[in-house]
Amino acid sequence: MKCAVDYPPDTEFPIENLPYGVFSTVDNPTKRIGVAIGDQILDLHSTKNIFRGPILSSNQDVFLEQTLNKFMELGRPAWREARASLQEYLCDKDRVKDGVFVEQWQAEMHLPAKIGDYTDFYSSIHHATNVGIMFRGEKDALMPNWKYIPVGYHGRASSVVVSGTPIRRPNGQTCPVEGAAPVFGPCRLLDFELEMAIFVGGKPNKLGEPIHIDDAEEHIFGMVLMNDWSARDIQKWEYVPLGPFLAKNLGTTISPWIVTMEALAPFIVENTKQDPAPFPYLTQKNNYNFDINLQVDIKCQNSTTTVCKTNYKYMYWTPKQHLAHHSVTGCNMNAGDLLASGTISGPTPDSYGSMLELCWRGTKPIPLNNGETRKFLQDGDEVILKGYCQGANHRVGFGACTGKVLPAHPVESRWK
Amino acid sequence: MKCAVDYPPDTEFPIENLPYGVFSTVDNPTKRIGVAIGDQILDLHSTKNIFRGPILSSNQDVFLEQTLNKFMELGRPAWREARASLQEYLCDKDRVKDGVFVEQWQAEMHLPAKIGDYTDFYSSIHHATNVGIMFRGEKDALMPNWKYIPVGYHGRASSVVVSGTPIRRPNGQTCPVEGAAPVFGPCRLLDFELEMAIFVGGKPNKLGEPIHIDDAEEHIFGMVLMNDWSARDIQKWEYVPLGPFLAKNLGTTISPWIVTMEALAPFIVENTKQDPAPFPYLTQKNNYNFDINLQVDIKCQNSTTTVCKTNYKYMYWTPKQHLAHHSVTGCNMNAGDLLASGTISGPTPDSYGSMLELCWRGTKPIPLNNGETRKFLQDGDEVILKGYCQGANHRVGFGACTGKVLPAHPVESRWK
Repeated sequence: MKCAVDYPPDTEFPIENLPYGVFSTVDNPTKRIGVAIGDQILDLHSTKNIFRGPILSSNQDVFLEQTLNKFMELGRPAWREARASLQEYLCDKDRVKDGVFVEQWQAEMHLPAKIGDYTDFYSSIHHATNVGIMFRGEKDALMPNWKYIPVGYHGRASSVVVSGTPIRRPNGQTCPVEGAAPVFGPCRLLDFELEMAIFVGGKPNKLGEPIHIDDAEEHIFGMVLMNDWSARDIQKWEYVPLGPFLAKNLGTTISPWIVTMEALAPFIVENTKQDPAPFPYLTQKNNYNFDINLQVDIKCQNSTTTVCKTNYKYMYWTPKQHLAHHSVTGCNMNAGDLLASGTISGPTPDSYGSMLELCWRGTKPIPLNNGETRKFLQDGDEVILKGYCQGANHRVGFGACTGKVLPAHPVESRWK
Repeated sequence: MKCAVDYPPDTEFPIENLPYGVFSTVDNPTKRIGVAIGDQILDLHSTKNIFRGPILSSNQDVFLEQTLNKFMELGRPAWREARASLQEYLCDKDRVKDGVFVEQWQAEMHLPAKIGDYTDFYSSIHHATNVGIMFRGEKDALMPNWKYIPVGYHGRASSVVVSGTPIRRPNGQTCPVEGAAPVFGPCRLLDFELEMAIFVGGKPNKLGEPIHIDDAEEHIFGMVLMNDWSARDIQKWEYVPLGPFLAKNLGTTISPWIVTMEALAPFIVENTKQDPAPFPYLTQKNNYNFDINLQVDIKCQNSTTTVCKTNYKYMYWTPKQHLAHHSVTGCNMNAGDLLASGTISGPTPDSYGSMLELCWRGTKPIPLNNGETRKFLQDGDEVILKGYCQGANHRVGFGACTGKVLPAHPVESRWK
């Protein structure tokens, strides 16, 4: 496939990728849908006559929206048709010259969808085991339910933000001395969590009517990188017995480009072996695990250190299992819902997806390239997540998912 | 105040109430905003010249919406002005004759707002203590954090439904024998939870910028009744360590009319004494607890039994404290967000707000008026929540919050 738009050979956005996003420019502050191609964005709001197929020719309006929700809701046949039409268009020298292109550096990216509900799973066995060992010891590291169900919880949708949004260190209650009274002040144990998330698409199921795992793929639109910022000390005090709450709603960052499952299909690898075998409602007939290289960098004072290299393929539960489980009790899933993996950790200490694990609860500080060390994040640190699939001659990448830590607000006198 | 619209003296919707809802009719399926008055609804979409005050005269469009979110976002001064204008209008015989009124029995009620995020707290000390005793014994009934923070969790917004929506008994994983393998099938321990919830209003705070408790009242629009249906056996298996998930997203029912805080103001009673004293960020300067009589009925085969009578005033944490706590780490709160109290239980066994407590974990079956007994809900049972404030000469009520239990779907052969 020879794209008619020039781009460097190492781009994350070749013709084989074509992720969707929502952007605006200084010249035109209208939020609009675009497709990343090389260093540019094809502006779907301003470019005509791309989608001539049977489904999309009568649904052109979905590309005039300010979010991708309506396009997502059209379902997989429409997504496939769009991809084919885009590839045909972008490879046609004559047609593509009529396209409206914007340089990516000139665009401001926005959340690609209105997120109705956001769910966070806990589906990396290495992560769950590491955390379990730290807090309960080797013997009881995994809870009895962990290998039977993809454990998850409802997160806060309003605080999901797009890459680049600064994250304010929160004030909150913590209990530094177990058994003593809690204290109020800035979070001391601020952490990142390297995650990936799927956007749900397709026609919403009705409340009470589960999505069968055989149909789950029809409801998975695409994936993004995610940093699930976590206030470990606030979480430890608040989370019993109802789970994470304020420790997570200070902000959750996603990468702006949604890489479609069609673009990821060539990078499918074998599912992780599950023992015990999952219940029939969680049993998938094909592989739905992905070879996605992941990396976390910490940047401070112009020095950048890679602190984690891992891969999505280490996930125990797949996105299809997440969706089937989420809806088995009848939960209605809507286009634009976000389902995250939970922290992605690999089997080796350099592949752990959070500072909590990398520093093993603060006992093994990480050296940074500028001579400093880190146990948890400091003010001014920027966390940069990256991810890509490596093909024979091209990469399918996600673009960066970044966020910089701002200092906590001083505790106001009227709060003292 | 003499209303120009006739209604019976025992109505829940006198001129002192004026709750907002969203309705449609067979004749006119457009969802539109209305105000309950007696047995009728004043149709704000079709009635002109009510809101002539300084704020609303230039914001008439908020009443042409299909949800209350835009009106909620205008803030307390606009809500007060609307209430005054409505009372003036409804007491003016000449003007009111131009109003468009719909009989309530002819209207279909809808969710009053687009709920961006839904949070459930756990703020009844009697409920938390009862559950704690059952699962951890008297000594450790309340977790160490309970009297320091309003414990809460993010719930599922998509599965919040309006009164009258049937609720399907869910299939799911449970572990009836501790230590043994789990099983899959219909929930056996389906329960109701009697709750109330506030709708957030006012201008959204920015991510990272908490709402101070002194300003919290400006962000609380009104209240509804809520039934937080709970699959106890599913919850018990799934909830460690991340809290309730699928056990709650099978459906959460709210009453259709939002009773404003202005209507509830005459029924403010003293806050529950809090010991230890809350942190300054949770310290409120005035009383914000409410004398609201609450009742739960179970209807089966045309026989109705009142199984619980309690009162909102038993709450330990107030809605202002909920909002201040929720946002203290910087969570952005939006108009239309729903913050629920958690199960409301009183001090006596007949005032417990869930079957779990009323039957004390299944050990004390409840007699029904038709001679049957109940430990948990059976298929066909209808749960009816009611609530009202008793004034000297009038009631300010919430209308019913009802839902009927449908049998679980047979476990399909392809799931076996």
